[in-house]
This record gives sequence, structure tokens and C-alpha cells, in this order.
Amino acid sequence: MPRIKLTLSYDGSNYSGWQVQLGQSSVQGTIEAVLARITGQPIRITASGRTDAGVHALGQVAAFDIDSRFTPAVLMRALNGELPYDIAVHSACEVPDSFDPIRHALRKRYRYLLNDAPVRDVFGRRYCWHCPPRLDVDAMRRACQALVGTHDFSSYETSGSPRATSIRTVFHLDLTRLPGPHSDRIELEIEADGFLYNMVRVIVGTLVEVGRGNRPESWPAEALAAQDRRAAGPTAPPEGLVLVRVEYPGQGSGGQVDVGSSR
Amino acid sequence: MPRIKLTLSYDGSNYSGWQVQLGQSSVQGTIEAVLARITGQPIRITASGRTDAGVHALGQVAAFDIDSRFTPAVLMRALNGELPYDIAVHSACEVPDSFDPIRHALRKRYRYLLNDAPVRDVFGRRYCWHCPPRLDVDAMRRACQALVGTHDFSSYETSGSPRATSIRTVFHLDLTRLPGPHSDRIELEIEADGFLYNMVRVIVGTLVEVGRGNRPESWPAEALAAQDRRAAGPTAPPEGLVLVRVEYPGQGSGGQVDVGSSR
Repeated sequence: MPRIKLTLSYDGSNYSGWQVQLGQSSVQGTIEAVLARITGQPIRITASGRTDAGVHALGQVAAFDIDSRFTPAVLMRALNGELPYDIAVHSACEVPDSFDPIRHALRKRYRYLLNDAPVRDVFGRRYCWHCPPRLDVDAMRRACQALVGTHDFSSYETSGSPRATSIRTVFHLDLTRLPGPHSDRIELEIEADGFLYNMVRVIVGTLVEVGRGNRPESWPAEALAAQDRRAAGPTAPPEGLVLVRVEYPGQGSGGQVDVGSSR
Repeated sequence: MPRIKLTLSYDGSNYSGWQVQLGQSSVQGTIEAVLARITGQPIRITASGRTDAGVHALGQVAAFDIDSRFTPAVLMRALNGELPYDIAVHSACEVPDSFDPIRHALRKRYRYLLNDAPVRDVFGRRYCWHCPPRLDVDAMRRACQALVGTHDFSSYETSGSPRATSIRTVFHLDLTRLPGPHSDRIELEIEADGFLYNMVRVIVGTLVEVGRGNRPESWPAEALAAQDRRAAGPTAPPEGLVLVRVEYPGQGSGGQVDVGSSR
């Protein structure tokens, strides 16, 4: 049975997260139900990682096995026709049987959207964290550089999540205040070889304390060194978070939505 | 009783439109209910114009009379505290008793968002018209220039709406394909001294026919000259439409959200 790799976007607002949960509407469960309807077979789909309730994706990657009657192009068209509006397939391709979307992921990139306008963005409830007053983005940028590199991120992880190691390598971490009419929006982008549970949201919650002037610029580094969740800031809310892309060997940034095979 | 002028933004997705309608949730009705709760008085609020179900606003202007115990700053804070997330007040100020948000409006600006990506934008269902395949924006830009100026726009109006005149002056009309990662999005901006019923949506529906190559670039001008609604294209869906700002005498572009008095 051929293995198919999908690149997916979804608005996580109406889902309990990626993973199937009894009695709740999940992204995985919604896609599996459509695949079962299309193929007449029960199909199990595996993603590069779970996203929590309210978290979005522009370039989630998932894989499943299906009999060869269904070409990738046909599957993509059928899925986009049957899936609800808030889940879409941007590319579908056949991959080797050995392809494992979890273990083979080299890098993931997340984006987190903050908004520090004095008045809320009426369109942003599901897509940003509204956290006025105005943040000192320059201070946040300087503070976050201490997190780039290979570190034990156990201070930046919701405790109780069992992991072989809490060491991760952050390749890129930066914040940008958007220009012109969107200058109330601040985008944080982070790329790493993997993320601990809630890692991005704890980093954001910690940096916002710096941006508000509640903590010094040295605090994120101190919290990192403490290797204790209680040393870092609060967990930022899920709605600002987007899984932007997942990179696999020999693929460059091909997981990106903008280069979906449908173009 | 002092008269208060509000600048408002709202996400129109969950409303039957601006205007109070029996048994339906309207923006006007929602604001009036909050004002009644805050003040203990029935208060009637008048906007620069109605917006239809699903249409959004960044800078709608509305006015009402209220007794002088409530300063604009107090009212703005109370309204933003009590209103649902999808309606927000960006400025509140006292204006002369004679201020009439309908009759005194000099110009209005609307924006319409199109998306011609092959796959839908999962975040865009409520905020753009997904109209693939790729549109010829250059052709649409050339075609739309015929609508700039003072014309009888009766071809671009949902018929049956009684108006003293269907002559309007369009000061500005242009389309832009957004740069970089948002190049699937096309923004139309239009500014005029007033708009007929569904005028922007009929203009968009007509230009999209040109962008798809279904009609020649000369068609919007021909439709204009016909003064007959049947000569123009279909009415574009409401969700792409945003009332950006309303200008009043001596105010410049002060109706814009970005310069709300709360900053």
C-alpha cells in the first residue's frame, strides 16, 4: 500500500486539537472520517506532532497508507471537496513506506502573533493574543537571543510531560513588529529541531513579561539556566500559535504552504 | 444632552448586519443593549450607513445622545468592557448636537478582499471571497479606471432600492495583489462620496469576470453606460467587504482606526 504525505493547513479554533479524543471534534478525526468516506476503508493518519486545542497550522505534515487506486492528485481533490472549510490540503505526494512524519522531522517552525493595540482587534480573537499596553519589542528581541542554540529547555515545558530528553536546538528565534497599518501586531518566529510540550507558549509568556517591563532582559536566560518550570513566565494562550512548516531530509523548505504542489 | 460620536470596528460574521432586525442579532442592537445596561436609559444609535450581514467594519462611525454624566472616555471603556469581542470602540468624542453621521459623511472608503489561491485559505472563510483560478489583476486594474469619477451607477446597484439619485463620485478605485507570502490575496480599495446598495459588491463581481477572462476590459465601462443592473456582473459575496473609514468635514482621515483617540 502506497504511503501518502499530506501538507495541511487548518484553523484550530473549532477543534479540540490535532489528536482524536473521545466525544470531541479533532482535526485528525475529521480527516480520518473523510478518508473513510472516500475510500470505504478505515485509515489511520499520523502527523508530525499534535497541536493543542485552538492552535492553527499553515504547514502541518501527516501521512497514511492507502491502496493504489487513489493517486495523490485525486486524493487531494477529494479531500478538499469533502473536508470542512477550516481544513485544507495543500499538497499530497507518494513517499517511501519508511517515511515517518514524527521521527523524520528535521526542523519545525512556529509563529506566534501578539497584538498590543489599546483596543482589541475584533478579527483577532481566534488568531492572536491581545496583550496591551504596548510591548518593548527591542527588549524582547535582545532577551530572546539567549534561547537560541542547544539548551535544556525544561524551564520552558509544561511539567509532567515524559520525554527522553528536554534538550533541544533552537536555530532561529526573533520578533518583528509589523509595518504600517499593522504596527500593533508582533510576530514571533521560532525554528528548532523539535519542541517540548507548550515550549513556544512558555517562551512567549516569558518574553511578554520582559516586554511589559515586569522582568529584566536577563530573565529568560536566568529561567533557562534554572531548569525549573517555575522559573519562567506564564503559558501564553493557544490562539496566537501557528505551526508554519515541518522540514524533512532532502526537502528544503518544501513543507511550506506557498509551494504546495497544486500550483 | 451631549451627542457622542463613536468610531467602531466589528467582525460582521455573527450579525445579521448593522441594523436592528426583529429576532436577529445586529451590531446596532448589540450596542444599544449595552448602552441601555450602562446608562439605565433606552438609547438609539445611528450609523453612517447600514452594513449587510457578514460585512465588516474597521472604521464605522455612529452617534447617539446621552446625559452628561458619561464622559466619552468613560463610555468608551465601559462599552469595550461590556461589548462582545467582535465589536470594539476605537474612539469616542463629543460632537455638536447638529452632527448627523449619515448626512454629514463626505467620503467613505471600502476594501474588498479576494483570494485566488488554488486551495482555500482556512482562515479566510469569513474574510475573503475565494475565487480561483488566478485572476488577471492588471486587466482588472485597467478596466476599473472607467468607474472613477462622477457617474450614474444604476448598473452597479441592487435594483429596487429607492434613492433620490444614483449618481455618485468615485474618488479612488484600485486593486493590489499583496506581496510576498500573501500574493494570493488581492485587495480592492474604493473611495466615494457615497455608495448605492451593494455597489461595491457588484463592482467586484463585475471586475472578477474581467480578471477571469470571461469579459473584455471594456465591459465595466459598457455596463456603466447601460444604466441597467442586468448589464453588470454578479454581486460578490459579503464576507470580503470591509467599511474602512468614513470622513466628515474638518476631520481629514480621523475616522481611521489607526488614529483612535485611545492612543
